[in-house]
Amino acid sequence: MEHTYAQIGHLVHRTPVLSSRLINEISGAEVYFKCENFQKSGSFKMRGALNAISNLSSAQQRSGVVTHSSGNFGQAVALSAANLGVEAHIVMPINAPDVKKKAVTQYGGNIIQCEATLEARERNAGNIVASKGASFLHPSNQIEVILGNATAGMELLQDHPELDVLMTPVGGGGLLAGNALAAHYFGQDCTVIGAEPALVDDAYRSLLSGKIEGNTRTDTIADGLRTTLGSVNFPIITQLVDQIIRVEEDEIISALKLVWERLKIIIEPSCAVPVAALLKEPEKFRGKRVGIILSGGNVDLSKLPF
Amino acid sequence: MEHTYAQIGHLVHRTPVLSSRLINEISGAEVYFKCENFQKSGSFKMRGALNAISNLSSAQQRSGVVTHSSGNFGQAVALSAANLGVEAHIVMPINAPDVKKKAVTQYGGNIIQCEATLEARERNAGNIVASKGASFLHPSNQIEVILGNATAGMELLQDHPELDVLMTPVGGGGLLAGNALAAHYFGQDCTVIGAEPALVDDAYRSLLSGKIEGNTRTDTIADGLRTTLGSVNFPIITQLVDQIIRVEEDEIISALKLVWERLKIIIEPSCAVPVAALLKEPEKFRGKRVGIILSGGNVDLSKLPF
Repeated sequence: MEHTYAQIGHLVHRTPVLSSRLINEISGAEVYFKCENFQKSGSFKMRGALNAISNLSSAQQRSGVVTHSSGNFGQAVALSAANLGVEAHIVMPINAPDVKKKAVTQYGGNIIQCEATLEARERNAGNIVASKGASFLHPSNQIEVILGNATAGMELLQDHPELDVLMTPVGGGGLLAGNALAAHYFGQDCTVIGAEPALVDDAYRSLLSGKIEGNTRTDTIADGLRTTLGSVNFPIITQLVDQIIRVEEDEIISALKLVWERLKIIIEPSCAVPVAALLKEPEKFRGKRVGIILSGGNVDLSKLPF
Repeated sequence: MEHTYAQIGHLVHRTPVLSSRLINEISGAEVYFKCENFQKSGSFKMRGALNAISNLSSAQQRSGVVTHSSGNFGQAVALSAANLGVEAHIVMPINAPDVKKKAVTQYGGNIIQCEATLEARERNAGNIVASKGASFLHPSNQIEVILGNATAGMELLQDHPELDVLMTPVGGGGLLAGNALAAHYFGQDCTVIGAEPALVDDAYRSLLSGKIEGNTRTDTIADGLRTTLGSVNFPIITQLVDQIIRVEEDEIISALKLVWERLKIIIEPSCAVPVAALLKEPEKFRGKRVGIILSGGNVDLSKLPF
């Protein structure tokens, strides 16, 4: 992981860590927010994308990269690729937020629009791999991406080595798995908790059943967390994550509003999920030092829930 | 002013200074945003309020303080007074945003509601002065408040002594006057510009006519800038401010959205006014180092313009 940091550390922002007197009072915990909403491209996904592209051979880099993403990973791949002089193709569902499509274009990415199904996304990405020889980058289920994501928790633990708990949202599982590794290697007996919308609680059920479960609906406001765990991150999560806390949609919206109003920072609904978990089950956190990764800040201001 | 800083420096946050690659590209300037939206109570007004209360005698402090404010100064007085162990009475118009009333109450301030006219506000505040012997604090037209506000620009110039331009919004004039003093004493040939909504361009017209002009309407979205200049700050502004740039309502909203989307921070519409001025007249700023005071971040999320 220190090797990963040597490779991408100079290409990412070392994001600030904020705290809020009010949120500490409400929760009874000492909470440290790692602000990946201030990261380049607006989310932690920059870390994984940069690491994955950096690990390609020069020949692979010359053939470009492709991913499918409803948003943040697409932006991160577009910007990472541009920074490293690599061509990027981003397959995006037609219902992706305009603000995310616009950002991909501004970063120089080539957008391929497709139907809003996983099958269509995979097929379109496969076509680019076949026709251009581009390397496929997975938003969450690829070890280079997971190790890149881990550098967020690693930085947080460098700043606050004594954290008792590290909490992240869980969707595809790449952020949670990476930061579970960070807590394992750089924490001092640091428990790892995932926070998940109850509407898409595949990670919660997967940890119970011991196999990757699907979701029957995906209409959570936390649009970054609609995907399911993968074969690479699931074993890491099984081994290193203590528990998953599930939260309701109204709890996510309240937590979102609280962070906007009190921390005065723009976070996206997905980041509000661990904040909602903190406020929902304060007895789990009381008196503890809690690190929360605020995963991103790419919000469509024309579609706010308040 | 260094005396002021010695008095209140330990009671305020030394707020961060942010910059944005995109905004630098668009404007052609090197822009430094002083983030008073992260200040205690959510705005720069904390600086002036603390300084004014600190300068009262012990006997005066025991009789409490009173102000009238549609928002930020009320919150700042409530929190400053609480921090200094002084009772605070805040006269607020009935149409003040709920989020601001709630904050005053949370900080321990005593709210007196009144009609939304300056006359009613002044009368109610006068009653408190008469009945309780409380000291009246003016939101913008009092030298202790102006000197307190100046510490924002002073900090910014300590961090970036080579600024060519310092720009703030102008409403009552307390922030602009204070920071004009900061630029005068701590800048190196630093020009000072005020930015004002065209709908309430009393400062622009006052500088032209040489006397304090009023406004015929006050319905700008920049709700912190609806008031007019005062007898204490006007001479300072006349002497030390280079010019006032006026911006339209749609320009304010665009600038607000740009800062929210790209800097990922919550600023209130009043702060977006200098950003709008920067984007409206880029030829004035191109190639220059420009400091902008982002005055506050207290926004009613239920009443957003997008």
